Amino acid sequence: MSAPPVFDAGFAQQFAALLAWRRDVRRFRRDPLPEGLVDRLLAQAELSPSVGHSQPWRWVRVRDEAQRQTARNSFQRCNADALGAYEGERARLYASLKLEGMREAPEQIAVFCDHSTQQGHGLGRRTMPEMLDYSVVAAITQFWLAARVAGVGVGWVSILEPEAVREALSAPPEWKLIAWLCIGWPEEESDVPELVRAGWESGRQA
Amino acid sequence: MSAPPVFDAGFAQQFAALLAWRRDVRRFRRDPLPEGLVDRLLAQAELSPSVGHSQPWRWVRVRDEAQRQTARNSFQRCNADALGAYEGERARLYASLKLEGMREAPEQIAVFCDHSTQQGHGLGRRTMPEMLDYSVVAAITQFWLAARVAGVGVGWVSILEPEAVREALSAPPEWKLIAWLCIGWPEEESDVPELVRAGWESGRQA
Repeated sequence: MSAPPVFDAGFAQQFAALLAWRRDVRRFRRDPLPEGLVDRLLAQAELSPSVGHSQPWRWVRVRDEAQRQTARNSFQRCNADALGAYEGERARLYASLKLEGMREAPEQIAVFCDHSTQQGHGLGRRTMPEMLDYSVVAAITQFWLAARVAGVGVGWVSILEPEAVREALSAPPEWKLIAWLCIGWPEEESDVPELVRAGWESGRQA
Repeated sequence: MSAPPVFDAGFAQQFAALLAWRRDVRRFRRDPLPEGLVDRLLAQAELSPSVGHSQPWRWVRVRDEAQRQTARNSFQRCNADALGAYEGERARLYASLKLEGMREAPEQIAVFCDHSTQQGHGLGRRTMPEMLDYSVVAAITQFWLAARVAGVGVGWVSILEPEAVREALSAPPEWKLIAWLCIGWPEEESDVPELVRAGWESGRQA
């Protein structure tokens, strides 16, 4: 154990820029990431807090084209349903949004929470069992920040049928899908969320 | 909008140290934090990703001693129940753990997810409604890291009855308790989780 680090004003300023420019990315270049980079980012993600030190995150790197296609099909079904629930101008705006980069992103990871893990001996999740899922979300958040430090973009796709995705990947029934992550070099960068730029909040098309 | 930041190797190395030394803190000094610091940390937390840009986080800074006492009472009930579920050596080890700093921490925040928010118009959470809660967890994770940049420790208490805490704070029924955060200067620092140091995983007392 070395001495605890002290972060100076210069680091704090750059860290603030990291948070501002982290962003959800849906427009990726197709060129691959350097060998080993995703593994290094996952190692940083796994320094994340977890309830009772349970570390329930399970990362499935999806490289098989048929499995990716199954997930894209699920997105398309869910997105069509979602579109059908909006009306008028908001439906037109929704239809114009690009909500995922599942065709372009060179790296894609399905992230699960292992509800069967014994690690941690149940500590801290007796009255709030959802803490196990939250631990995985914290790790994803750290992955996202670590990726942006390396200039890599991440997009979290949630417009999916979790069970259909789990089955397509032959993941155990005790694993709950938390996220589908698209990962790659971003085509563009901004410190303003894409949904804000698109006018989703206000209803106006920006 | 300024130019996108590029993070050099020096920043990446310090960022790695930040993740390693973030840690869950349960041993706090009692002296107050500088005026305005928590507000600045919350502003950084709110740069976090949220589903559909819904920003459903609601931060309740708990200063009232009676409210803090109600939360401590809830912890004590839940912790006694948890202890009763372990046996033998593991029960003795559990009883020896310090699992919260609710008496000492100068700042305490109850963090809720507002399930009634219309912001984001439901985007991205039709098939995975839990995304709203996850958005709050991401913001807490960023708060935690931002705090450690400033040298401030954070501990997440989950051994609580969420509804009892919500009622004690008179929060609306649509707000779901996600976390109780204890915040202050840490008494000690380590890059090894306290549960690991205590031998909780292995069952041996370190």
